[in-house]
Amino acid sequence: MALTDRSHAEALDALDPLSAYRTRFVIDDPDLIYLDSNSLGRLPVATEARLARTVRQEWGDALVRSWDQWLDLPRRVGDRIARTVLGAEPGEVVVADSTTVNFYKLVIAALDARPDRRVIITDVDNFPTDRYVLEGVAAARGATVRWLEADVVAGPQLVDVVPLLGDDVALVTFSHVAYRSGARADMAAITAAAHEVGALALWDLSHSAGSVPVSLGQSNVDLAIGCTYKYLNGGPGSPAWLFVRRSLQGGLEQPIWGWFGQRDQFTMGPAYQAEGDIRAFLSGTPSVLALAAIDEGVALVEEAGITAVAEKGRALTDYAIALYDTWLADLGFLLGTPRDPERRGAHISIRRADADVLCTALIGVGVVPDFRRPDAIRLGLAPLTTRFVDVWQGLATLRELAK
Amino acid sequence: MALTDRSHAEALDALDPLSAYRTRFVIDDPDLIYLDSNSLGRLPVATEARLARTVRQEWGDALVRSWDQWLDLPRRVGDRIARTVLGAEPGEVVVADSTTVNFYKLVIAALDARPDRRVIITDVDNFPTDRYVLEGVAAARGATVRWLEADVVAGPQLVDVVPLLGDDVALVTFSHVAYRSGARADMAAITAAAHEVGALALWDLSHSAGSVPVSLGQSNVDLAIGCTYKYLNGGPGSPAWLFVRRSLQGGLEQPIWGWFGQRDQFTMGPAYQAEGDIRAFLSGTPSVLALAAIDEGVALVEEAGITAVAEKGRALTDYAIALYDTWLADLGFLLGTPRDPERRGAHISIRRADADVLCTALIGVGVVPDFRRPDAIRLGLAPLTTRFVDVWQGLATLRELAK
Repeated sequence: MALTDRSHAEALDALDPLSAYRTRFVIDDPDLIYLDSNSLGRLPVATEARLARTVRQEWGDALVRSWDQWLDLPRRVGDRIARTVLGAEPGEVVVADSTTVNFYKLVIAALDARPDRRVIITDVDNFPTDRYVLEGVAAARGATVRWLEADVVAGPQLVDVVPLLGDDVALVTFSHVAYRSGARADMAAITAAAHEVGALALWDLSHSAGSVPVSLGQSNVDLAIGCTYKYLNGGPGSPAWLFVRRSLQGGLEQPIWGWFGQRDQFTMGPAYQAEGDIRAFLSGTPSVLALAAIDEGVALVEEAGITAVAEKGRALTDYAIALYDTWLADLGFLLGTPRDPERRGAHISIRRADADVLCTALIGVGVVPDFRRPDAIRLGLAPLTTRFVDVWQGLATLRELAK
Repeated sequence: MALTDRSHAEALDALDPLSAYRTRFVIDDPDLIYLDSNSLGRLPVATEARLARTVRQEWGDALVRSWDQWLDLPRRVGDRIARTVLGAEPGEVVVADSTTVNFYKLVIAALDARPDRRVIITDVDNFPTDRYVLEGVAAARGATVRWLEADVVAGPQLVDVVPLLGDDVALVTFSHVAYRSGARADMAAITAAAHEVGALALWDLSHSAGSVPVSLGQSNVDLAIGCTYKYLNGGPGSPAWLFVRRSLQGGLEQPIWGWFGQRDQFTMGPAYQAEGDIRAFLSGTPSVLALAAIDEGVALVEEAGITAVAEKGRALTDYAIALYDTWLADLGFLLGTPRDPERRGAHISIRRADADVLCTALIGVGVVPDFRRPDAIRLGLAPLTTRFVDVWQGLATLRELAK
């Protein structure tokens, strides 16, 4: 049985310990080959029921009385994300606001914690919203972004970061897994190097939380943010999480002072006094429906276990790269993702100049990838919902279209 | 038939042209007297179906392909709010982020637009999150908040605002309808006075959008924000709207630069360049589920018409005050709300030192008000869902408990 036989993929699926999890998601169209779970994760079956209950019973029937249980949702869901996919402690994570807003809060908190330093380091291929936030904050606060021109496939490397470091650096911030290449940075090593010069490290885990093993604790990470609508299956535009290492809480101040960050919120006192814990990083009223959906999405990852999830992510990307080598490498494509499984996430990028045309053609025949400018077909292989036959079918289809 | 007879209330309900709208909301417990719609509006029947559809079909089935239609939801829902309850033009309103975050964005945009002025005027009884945001921004930007000590019932009055104005004032900001007293400020007159000294005016309409007639256009308002989970029935923690007068768009810059505010968002270009329209005030990915819910909630107000809604709000509060005068005034209560219907919203405050105890007792017998420190029982009389018999029953119960 050759690697390129469909039966090989079927055999891999038969051996997959997580294969049953696919039934825990709503899949009304069994013929759809969905390879874009890292843009929007699939809908868990339990989420549909949970949302119906939250809407009808908690909102419709109990009404404002439900706030007794809703009030702590940002922390409760945060704690679940912390233990399930972040290797963080209870009380270090909250869920609320968008990735963009959370990133903004932590960038300013970090800059204000290093008032005599005005340099922020990031890379030119970081996710746009991160780059835009940094530009905006730098302009407002008289800071400078020192841009790393990282290798477009390998992403930010310690050896390239170190020469940029110095005692003028307040903050070092990268994506843990790069949104386009899927390159996974050495979070612990880069964080240690940042600490070496007295800087703080802020990581965007949007593409790694729920796809690869993470220990924010062991990696000694200071600050992190990430979205919940990819591998955590929180639904379209679901709010983001935010992590602040416990030892830093109390010493950092975020800029958007609101009633959800206020100590004794309902005394509605005359002066803002931030909560003494992670709630100090909240601002306004969080979306309850979205939080309920995230809770269910993360519960599935928790049940499967991040170790098994990450192993399958590695196996799926291994398999996709093997098919790429056999089928696509000689058709003018480039692999846009590191080959070392320790250095990538659960998505791969396949590059060719006509990637946008190919993506449109793929969608036309029921294979959904993502196009990322300028030349990448991005395949997100969410471990809980992607089968090996999906990878086979997706790449076989691409091969046919690309010939 | 005396005013205090239940049959009088029943007669008012029989004459109410909006009475049928109550059937458009989920009301599983017909005995519940819900007088807290200005904390959380009721669940529209259509919203339950819309959410089920958005979850199953748009998210579950169409998946990432739905972004084609979701992408413009912040503007589409914004336009509906603009025409339905704000008296604003298409393209002047977007929905995304919390009230707190939107307020923060506009306060900074206003301060940056008046760089030689460092004073912000607001009142000490403004809603806590507004006050906290102003404190935080003032601390960060070297600005000063000039606090108006407004009358606790009447709220901010033009005559008291004028002496605080001067050429050092960048921004004047108040709630249109005060969260506790229900006092409705003279938005047009105070805005004109602010303009007179070259300041910008930013209004929080959380308690007035959907309850009283508003014309941001005719009032010449510069900036406004408001929540959607009260009279717009958007659901718990639903995102907030944000208004920027068209002539100011392009000239103002908000501080949280993100990919949803970026021109040609999906080119993911190297440098932030804000959209030329209201989208420049967006930052991160908005919650799609929440936006769908808001759309349905506002659609009900649109169908009923804000004029009829506001008239009923006036009639309900008139009736509540009449019952207060007859039943409660001699029991040591104070009316915490202006008697002039032009100077209040659709909620009233009834004050006594033991308000917290009374609120708990009311909830215990199936009447849900809100307690607002230090001494207010707040009754929110949402016009589309509140009957005159609800007002009668609520106040009759309070009278019994308070004797």
